[in-house]
Amino acid sequence: MARPSSILIEDAVVVTMDPRRRVIEGGSILVEDDRIAEIRGPAGGRRRKAEQRISAKGMAVIPGLIDTHLHLAQSLLRGCADDLPLVEWLRERVWPIQGCFTEEDGRVSAELSMLEMIRSGTTSFAGVDVVSRYGFDGIARSVVNAGMRGALAKTIMDSPGYGRKGSIMPAGLVEEKEACVREARSMVKKWNGIKGGLVRTWLAPRSLGGCSRELYEEVADLAEEQKTRVTMHLAEVKEDVRYAKQNFGMTPFEFIEKVGLAGPGSLFAHMVWLTDGDIEKVAETKANVAHCPSSNLKLASGIPKIPELLEAGANVGLGCDGAPCNNSYDMIREMKIAAVIQKGRLLDPQTMPATAVLEMATVRGAKAMGMGSEIGSIEVGKKADLVLINLKKPHLTPFREIVSNIVYSAMGSDVDTVMVDGRLLLRHGKALTLDEGKIVGEAQRRQDELISRSGVRA
Amino acid sequence: MARPSSILIEDAVVVTMDPRRRVIEGGSILVEDDRIAEIRGPAGGRRRKAEQRISAKGMAVIPGLIDTHLHLAQSLLRGCADDLPLVEWLRERVWPIQGCFTEEDGRVSAELSMLEMIRSGTTSFAGVDVVSRYGFDGIARSVVNAGMRGALAKTIMDSPGYGRKGSIMPAGLVEEKEACVREARSMVKKWNGIKGGLVRTWLAPRSLGGCSRELYEEVADLAEEQKTRVTMHLAEVKEDVRYAKQNFGMTPFEFIEKVGLAGPGSLFAHMVWLTDGDIEKVAETKANVAHCPSSNLKLASGIPKIPELLEAGANVGLGCDGAPCNNSYDMIREMKIAAVIQKGRLLDPQTMPATAVLEMATVRGAKAMGMGSEIGSIEVGKKADLVLINLKKPHLTPFREIVSNIVYSAMGSDVDTVMVDGRLLLRHGKALTLDEGKIVGEAQRRQDELISRSGVRA
Repeated sequence: MARPSSILIEDAVVVTMDPRRRVIEGGSILVEDDRIAEIRGPAGGRRRKAEQRISAKGMAVIPGLIDTHLHLAQSLLRGCADDLPLVEWLRERVWPIQGCFTEEDGRVSAELSMLEMIRSGTTSFAGVDVVSRYGFDGIARSVVNAGMRGALAKTIMDSPGYGRKGSIMPAGLVEEKEACVREARSMVKKWNGIKGGLVRTWLAPRSLGGCSRELYEEVADLAEEQKTRVTMHLAEVKEDVRYAKQNFGMTPFEFIEKVGLAGPGSLFAHMVWLTDGDIEKVAETKANVAHCPSSNLKLASGIPKIPELLEAGANVGLGCDGAPCNNSYDMIREMKIAAVIQKGRLLDPQTMPATAVLEMATVRGAKAMGMGSEIGSIEVGKKADLVLINLKKPHLTPFREIVSNIVYSAMGSDVDTVMVDGRLLLRHGKALTLDEGKIVGEAQRRQDELISRSGVRA
Repeated sequence: MARPSSILIEDAVVVTMDPRRRVIEGGSILVEDDRIAEIRGPAGGRRRKAEQRISAKGMAVIPGLIDTHLHLAQSLLRGCADDLPLVEWLRERVWPIQGCFTEEDGRVSAELSMLEMIRSGTTSFAGVDVVSRYGFDGIARSVVNAGMRGALAKTIMDSPGYGRKGSIMPAGLVEEKEACVREARSMVKKWNGIKGGLVRTWLAPRSLGGCSRELYEEVADLAEEQKTRVTMHLAEVKEDVRYAKQNFGMTPFEFIEKVGLAGPGSLFAHMVWLTDGDIEKVAETKANVAHCPSSNLKLASGIPKIPELLEAGANVGLGCDGAPCNNSYDMIREMKIAAVIQKGRLLDPQTMPATAVLEMATVRGAKAMGMGSEIGSIEVGKKADLVLINLKKPHLTPFREIVSNIVYSAMGSDVDTVMVDGRLLLRHGKALTLDEGKIVGEAQRRQDELISRSGVRA
């Protein structure tokens, strides 16, 4: 699809999320090529001409939402693994099914995940996938075609992990250390920064127990060598803490700091089981956290201390994790859950107010992705990643406090229009870069076949 | 709107919620007048003729959802009172604004609440409102016009309540005991059971501290005299426990049992702070519970012990509470939150599985409303309260485990068609009995005026 060189979005409630957190009623945004060129109030004066005009009357414009932790290849597993303990969930459902993935399964799953994200206002994501068997290239290509802004990483593991009854990884997913590093380097070289930086490639050691100590250290070196970022699951379950204590005599985060992985270039998913000392260290090292509330609750991992992390000065983004553990890729729904569970946990209605949650899904998410100066807020010069939300809905009426309405009352389906890098991906709820009917049909057929091939009883 | 005497819903995934919890793929439901006349599988044989046919291909049909605790007159307060402590929330926002309500404000608020409910698949509700100033009749008439199945109750209070700094009720909302009883009796006589039982009138002592001991006892007598039901807020906040202990030397539920209000005809909202003994007593007395997870979390009341209540044999329904404490009237969203918070609280992924949650929203809700033999499941002879959910959506794909998909992945906006008592209230997402455009516009204008009249800073 050709992109007009300029688009003017007119007459919106603009939720800028700029440093002053300004909300501009009756505002207009001029997009030129991939960037925001002008932002004006209702009495904005003379404007530069635009090739295309979009009326946003009755709509809010928010920065594109940023999902800091998810698995693209898991949407084909929706409904296959519910109400189960984490290890059984992985060993008996997720991995056996993913072990049967073909490259086409990987592609369709990624497309289905992105379709759901685009429809519910997500423009950027960090996606980690176990892609040994079904290829990284197919997934990366599908992200390019969909036009989303994605940081992709293949899960790196040279060790069989651990579980209540020993190893949890299926044999085929673990590789030799040298192969891990070689493959990761070649993926980064091939894909990192293509399409003007729209697609990035990161490094993703799976979790504690999934890598040898030497591999963590080599990953740290490789990240520096390739100037890329690292993401991994950390302190997701209590078991992680026991494992780290037993094997290294320290907490999971202390170990990860020791091997050189804790820093501003790192993004740790979950971080449910942290000591007060860990929380201080996360802030000190400027490591980033991807908070996945639905996943942590549904898998019964626990409720992380997010207000405490924020209070300590740590940066926290938000994530939906995967279809079998959430079961959706809808950041709007995730925001509400993120807000209310902390109030319930701390018995404090004032903790995690709506604005703090929207910050996690936008500016803080951008920072967690290492793109704080490019995305996450509506400011002149930033990338044009924008989401229009239709406010003319009964459940969003009356409209008074826009941020509260978006966090507590909105649904993913209220998203009308989505733009990434100045290009429209959704217009009036219709996906423009992905063929919805085809993907939905193919996904259904492929899940049926995967279940039958894998022999999983689901 | 005229109702066809018979409607055939064809080719659906029928989630019956009958005692065997059958799911029928390719099923048909014949509705005659207000009742379900036939349910057939794909090879169902000869059918009776129907005046109207509805294709439900690609859709699930579920029993209409039942919201066991909400406030119709609070939707006009959406966005006016977020991220605040309960007492401040009531004293400085909710009550001052509601104190300025006119009868028309009450009606529009009720219509807006019902519009949101109908659009997201709720067909029945128990609504409690502080209607002294703005009239019960207007609200009751709006329920009749909307065609929903509603149990309505005016809040009863003859005492000023309590709060951290003393009384929390604005003076105008408290009435003399005799006036309370007289007014309640006349409302019940006027409205209970009209429209073939579509509208019922219950009794609603507000909460502990809101009524004198004598008034609770008179309410119990009046319920028996008028053969109606009682609902009240109970053990919502820790403060309730302290108050009951100090004033009566027992727990809130023990006190309520003492005054004759604990029984199968009672429905208690919240029940967050229960002792193990209370939980046993709730089950023994067959009292019903309305669980409002979003409200309990957002107002930081706490997380109730729902799995423990169910385990003890108590009956628990689900509720959305009001717009300023949720902030939505969407039972589909509420189901997911109900499922995941208990897993997180108990660190047990198997507690509150999807089916248990859908039971709370349907069959258990019906029992809590005293209508277990009439609504809550799709069975021949029951009232035709049915909801069609469109499954052809990316976020509901692939479709495998229908109940899991509805509880964990569906959105209110996936509801396509809603029928109550055999009458269509929503078709292809369009409300048929309520004028959406008019209500949305009026609600916005009225909130603006209420804020200005009340002098509340929101």
